[in-house]
Amino acid sequence: MRSFHVRAGKLKSAIAPVPKLRRGWALVRVRLAGICNTDIEILRGYHDFRGTPGHEFVGEIAEVRGVSEREREQERWIGRRVAGEINVNCSAYGFRPLCEFCQRGLKTHCARRTVLGIVAHDGAFAEYLALPLENLHVVPDSVSNEQAVFVEPLAAACEILDQVNIAKINEAAVLGDGKLAQLVARVLRIKLRHVVMYGKHEKKLALARLVGVKTKRIHGNTGDAKRVIENYGLVVEATGSPSGLTLAQHLTEPRGTLVLKSTFHGAAPVETWSIVVKEITMVGSRCGPFPKAIALLRSGKVDPTPLITRTFPLAEAPKAIQFAQKKGVMKILLKS
Amino acid sequence: MRSFHVRAGKLKSAIAPVPKLRRGWALVRVRLAGICNTDIEILRGYHDFRGTPGHEFVGEIAEVRGVSEREREQERWIGRRVAGEINVNCSAYGFRPLCEFCQRGLKTHCARRTVLGIVAHDGAFAEYLALPLENLHVVPDSVSNEQAVFVEPLAAACEILDQVNIAKINEAAVLGDGKLAQLVARVLRIKLRHVVMYGKHEKKLALARLVGVKTKRIHGNTGDAKRVIENYGLVVEATGSPSGLTLAQHLTEPRGTLVLKSTFHGAAPVETWSIVVKEITMVGSRCGPFPKAIALLRSGKVDPTPLITRTFPLAEAPKAIQFAQKKGVMKILLKS
Repeated sequence: MRSFHVRAGKLKSAIAPVPKLRRGWALVRVRLAGICNTDIEILRGYHDFRGTPGHEFVGEIAEVRGVSEREREQERWIGRRVAGEINVNCSAYGFRPLCEFCQRGLKTHCARRTVLGIVAHDGAFAEYLALPLENLHVVPDSVSNEQAVFVEPLAAACEILDQVNIAKINEAAVLGDGKLAQLVARVLRIKLRHVVMYGKHEKKLALARLVGVKTKRIHGNTGDAKRVIENYGLVVEATGSPSGLTLAQHLTEPRGTLVLKSTFHGAAPVETWSIVVKEITMVGSRCGPFPKAIALLRSGKVDPTPLITRTFPLAEAPKAIQFAQKKGVMKILLKS
Repeated sequence: MRSFHVRAGKLKSAIAPVPKLRRGWALVRVRLAGICNTDIEILRGYHDFRGTPGHEFVGEIAEVRGVSEREREQERWIGRRVAGEINVNCSAYGFRPLCEFCQRGLKTHCARRTVLGIVAHDGAFAEYLALPLENLHVVPDSVSNEQAVFVEPLAAACEILDQVNIAKINEAAVLGDGKLAQLVARVLRIKLRHVVMYGKHEKKLALARLVGVKTKRIHGNTGDAKRVIENYGLVVEATGSPSGLTLAQHLTEPRGTLVLKSTFHGAAPVETWSIVVKEITMVGSRCGPFPKAIALLRSGKVDPTPLITRTFPLAEAPKAIQFAQKKGVMKILLKS
């Protein structure tokens, strides 16, 4: 099958064998894959990942293994359209006993986990990928492929609602105007009347205004924006850059909550004293609940398709990932 | 009265007038003041503070104002031994309306607050200081001055119990073996069977072992200690140095809580991606409940006096603060 590997900071085309299946796993024919900032960070060395990147996808189940003929028939797995959770835990690899975190039900924090396209597990920039059946979620017919490819990042945005007591928040700020920030703002806007996005790009901010999010343009380095005087009970840092955190701390009110969404390679300079003095709670936030994200797409409460800038054929993945790094570009998809 | 001011990174002696009292305030004759790392950071430029530092003290009320003669008699304020909360809020200055945070009951986060010996308010390295009566807590007779001078930092240690659901924690780590770390470990040890202190100084670690805290010696830069494999549901960073945070993040288990206690001047390099990936909750923690601290001292559950290295006369404050920065030195007191 056609696939792409990370080598020396670039995506290289390769003909690879179709992944072999373990018991309880499925082979998925990828139809659309999304390019995420994490993929770009991976090219820069994040997680030292070698293999096929890509963790946002929608596809159809082509094959399942370790399921009886009858179950296979009953479940009608083959041909079903699915999105997939990216963390693969102990039990999917047959490890016994389960690790401490799986035993506690924190499967996304499994100590032995692999992560699709990020940690020791080939991902979605290929014609096929393999995931355990328990990771797959059927996409309803009313949700298009172009919407369903956003299930993974939209679930990550929904994670915030599981981590923060949103009922206690009056007003929230989202830092960043990129792909994840846009999804976060849309999810928060469902729950809160006042959501303010801080970003550098007028065109991107305009996308947020279309869905009722207020926007503030930041000029220059976000770290310089200390003259900003607003304060928020909830601030979500989703700039994807080290400089966002300084402004995020500054915008968080005393005893407020600062959710960290950005993952970038390297260290950010943090004046931790302000976290102590303001008694800020900082919450790291990663993967989230797929059913909630699918429900938001189905209900029409979130439509991410205006965030798509362009779709490339899978064969042009290296060109696509270069294009994704250009200024002003939002979501880039790979179709196969 | 004799007092000491910060000037050009040093403590300078000065004869100052006794502080004037507002209505509802008290004049306190300081008997013992403690030197905290924050005082040393203030000499280094933290908060740009000018004036008299010192925020840990015990003393006697010498005068009160704005209380009727009868109340004064009934309350028997004069001569009572007190410790004092250091944040002075809107209402104590007569501001109306109260700021948003005072209205919400978050008085220690008052937007207009001054802080004794730290922000725009002369502190305890002097014969007298002034605080609102509402900030003062009477010290029971069974608690000595040498114990009572620890009420402020012990309350700061107790703050953690108000911020973290300690019942869900099996084992906690305290990073640092200094004065605040020692108090934090003692407070946690009351609630938890397993508390482990990570520190660099064998003599300081030995003090913690005396009260049933396990200890691990760290050699070299704490940031290098990545081979440490332990994981804790609760980690308290109280090293007072920027390098402690890396180890603290490393020691915090997925979905665990990392309490930040260190306040130092400047920025620490933080690999925020690990906070995101492990979904760590980082909680800044500052001042705490005085009644709880006084109760711990009275009950004998915490005795901080073994942490006292030496007591200097107030007149020797500049020498004392130099001495406090020497290797192996714990709490230094000023007596007057």
